[in-house]
Amino acid sequence: MSKSANAKGIKHKPHLGETNTRGTPSNKSIQDWPGLIHEVPGFRTAAVHCGLKRKKIKPDIGLILAEEKASAAAVYTTNMVRAAPVDLSRDALALSKGTAKAVIVNAGNANACTGRQGERDARKMATLTAKAVGCPIAQIQVCSTGIIGQTLPMKKIEKGIAKLGKAIAQSDQTGDFARAILTTDLVSKTAGATFTLDGKVIRMAGVTKGSGMIAPRMATTLGFIATDAAVSPPVLQAALSAVADETFNCITVDGDTSTNDTLIALASGKASANQPTIKKASGRAYRLFRDGLLYVCDQLARQVAADGEGAHHTVTLFVGGTRTTADARKAARAVAESPLVKTAIAGHDPNWGRIMAAAGRSGISFDPKESSLTVCGHELYREGGPVNFDAKKVSKAMQKRDVSLILMLGNGPGHAKFYTCDLTEGYVRINTYYST
Amino acid sequence: MSKSANAKGIKHKPHLGETNTRGTPSNKSIQDWPGLIHEVPGFRTAAVHCGLKRKKIKPDIGLILAEEKASAAAVYTTNMVRAAPVDLSRDALALSKGTAKAVIVNAGNANACTGRQGERDARKMATLTAKAVGCPIAQIQVCSTGIIGQTLPMKKIEKGIAKLGKAIAQSDQTGDFARAILTTDLVSKTAGATFTLDGKVIRMAGVTKGSGMIAPRMATTLGFIATDAAVSPPVLQAALSAVADETFNCITVDGDTSTNDTLIALASGKASANQPTIKKASGRAYRLFRDGLLYVCDQLARQVAADGEGAHHTVTLFVGGTRTTADARKAARAVAESPLVKTAIAGHDPNWGRIMAAAGRSGISFDPKESSLTVCGHELYREGGPVNFDAKKVSKAMQKRDVSLILMLGNGPGHAKFYTCDLTEGYVRINTYYST
Repeated sequence: MSKSANAKGIKHKPHLGETNTRGTPSNKSIQDWPGLIHEVPGFRTAAVHCGLKRKKIKPDIGLILAEEKASAAAVYTTNMVRAAPVDLSRDALALSKGTAKAVIVNAGNANACTGRQGERDARKMATLTAKAVGCPIAQIQVCSTGIIGQTLPMKKIEKGIAKLGKAIAQSDQTGDFARAILTTDLVSKTAGATFTLDGKVIRMAGVTKGSGMIAPRMATTLGFIATDAAVSPPVLQAALSAVADETFNCITVDGDTSTNDTLIALASGKASANQPTIKKASGRAYRLFRDGLLYVCDQLARQVAADGEGAHHTVTLFVGGTRTTADARKAARAVAESPLVKTAIAGHDPNWGRIMAAAGRSGISFDPKESSLTVCGHELYREGGPVNFDAKKVSKAMQKRDVSLILMLGNGPGHAKFYTCDLTEGYVRINTYYST
Repeated sequence: MSKSANAKGIKHKPHLGETNTRGTPSNKSIQDWPGLIHEVPGFRTAAVHCGLKRKKIKPDIGLILAEEKASAAAVYTTNMVRAAPVDLSRDALALSKGTAKAVIVNAGNANACTGRQGERDARKMATLTAKAVGCPIAQIQVCSTGIIGQTLPMKKIEKGIAKLGKAIAQSDQTGDFARAILTTDLVSKTAGATFTLDGKVIRMAGVTKGSGMIAPRMATTLGFIATDAAVSPPVLQAALSAVADETFNCITVDGDTSTNDTLIALASGKASANQPTIKKASGRAYRLFRDGLLYVCDQLARQVAADGEGAHHTVTLFVGGTRTTADARKAARAVAESPLVKTAIAGHDPNWGRIMAAAGRSGISFDPKESSLTVCGHELYREGGPVNFDAKKVSKAMQKRDVSLILMLGNGPGHAKFYTCDLTEGYVRINTYYST
């Protein structure tokens, strides 16, 4: 029932606060697309307010529905302390052999560290949603985000799911799903792409949230991708796992991996009934699909870093020249999580010693005498020693919202790109006064 | 020439700002002692202003002199980006077979990331000091602390060393050595202990600095210990390495390991000419010596965490029940470095979910259902779920300067103690506006 944006004549609405900064896909076969999930053929979304957030104008529970059972893939948090819905969703995906019919998401409460009661509540959310949309319970993915350690107000949730069930039966879009999943985020975060596979236009749309407790490892904050490509579950999982490693796992706001991180991809296969399903994780069709997914996830991940709690700057950090990719990521993570580096960026201070010190303590091996550092286009460090530079000029260049750091640590083939943000008094204020 | 505090009748002066909080040694054979390094028989100290810090009343270069060649041991930073004086001192200690006559320390400039010029400058500092005190260059340890990436103002340093040489020839104490090594520290940091070995009283005094870029790994910020015990160099090194792992390597302010971390221990053997030298790293005498060193280093390490940049609270974190000590330290480091945990402590917020989430992402394996958490004497989490507690009461308990966290992660034998501090807007302010 869902149609493309053009067919519907729907314009992409600007989100609250500011417009997403969108990039240009590096693969020329892929076009940026401002579509939302319900604009991907085969999918509907609904979002309502049920009382989890205080302000009534804020939606706090949302539903994604695949009109027919979709291929599904997911990566979940690697935190040892996992929220109840994460364990439930993982089990469901295994039971359903990589398929799903609906994703139910609430904000305001993470249902993490809530013991047996939390497990019962997550199961209840799945049962209620399965009833509302008419499918087996194993076809439901459950995601929660918000405060840790408080049990869910189940009466509110129950009311919310009932509302969502009614809404989604009547319309392919109710409310703003992208806003329903937000917590301390200032802006909603979406991205999309189109590309042509065997003469058919494929649409892909994604949505994510996250502002604090951001340092996904093998998983992410919450993210949802929908596509009408025909992809078998194992191939969708292979593509998602590979892409998550390069995108959501390469962002950090504060080094704190959440208990609820989940990234889910759904593929309806609606692009064409005749289009062959991508059944192996290699070949031209797979690579194109993977590049499309990479583009969408990269855009989403960048938006999470940009909306880091209290952030004034978005930092793109490129690390190269290391022995391996793993080394590059390790050094990038150390630099991107260093409070001294992040406060220097907040102060527009070309205090590059902090960047070199962070890379040096990252645990990887490199020779400082073969290293160099470029900040916002200005080389500040080369071959073990400082380069003469105009500090005022570099500081001025650092005042732009987007700050780039290029750190070469030798002549090896390893490289990685990380997104992060600066550390401001605002971050400290938000997290000192959040909760009780 | 130096004598004990009692013999001299010198009272321990309170340091600027506030008095050190001193503990009680757990080994009853060890007594807390308020002595300074120059009060340990066999040692002298001098400190003067040479222009590295702006304010003339602040000493910025200091010298420790062993009246006769002393046993020496040291642990240095494991950062791949090491300051020139670190490499020089490490080589000197190897060349001198674990002995030293003097330690020269400057604040205000780290001489790190300064290339070939930095190496020449560190060597010049050693040469000038060797001349001033009359010993081979390999008997000199050089330490620098301060801004990274700027070459040393050698004319000032030269003048400073000349002054120090004159002063130390005339008196066993000139200026305040503990203050000469400070950078952003608010208070100077000293600790001491006495114990009796074979009927002779052994004295041990230590001094340290550090407030930011604190997350020593296998080394420390700057720390200096002097004792009149007779200990062979290899035994002194064994004791120092073991103790550093339990003390200086178990503190963190911001997770940023410095390029200049150095902890040096000197033993004059002056306690008694007849006292046998401790020649093996086992047995009763060694254990007592090691416990004395542990007490002094533990006190110093705690003071560094307490003076963390912008800190209002000192946090003692005990992690137990893990499979191994390494696991306990890994979990403790993750909790102690978590910005979300540290801001919750700043806000007196018993938001224990952040603590469990940080432990969960630390990379160690444990079962949340066998875990518990106690904050300032109140159990908040047990066996995978929340405990009912009075949030106002716990928040009030967290308003004290000293906050204790006890985190049990299973039933294993592994345990560790970490010192850290809260994260405040003050930390961000200091590090946003430091330097340029």
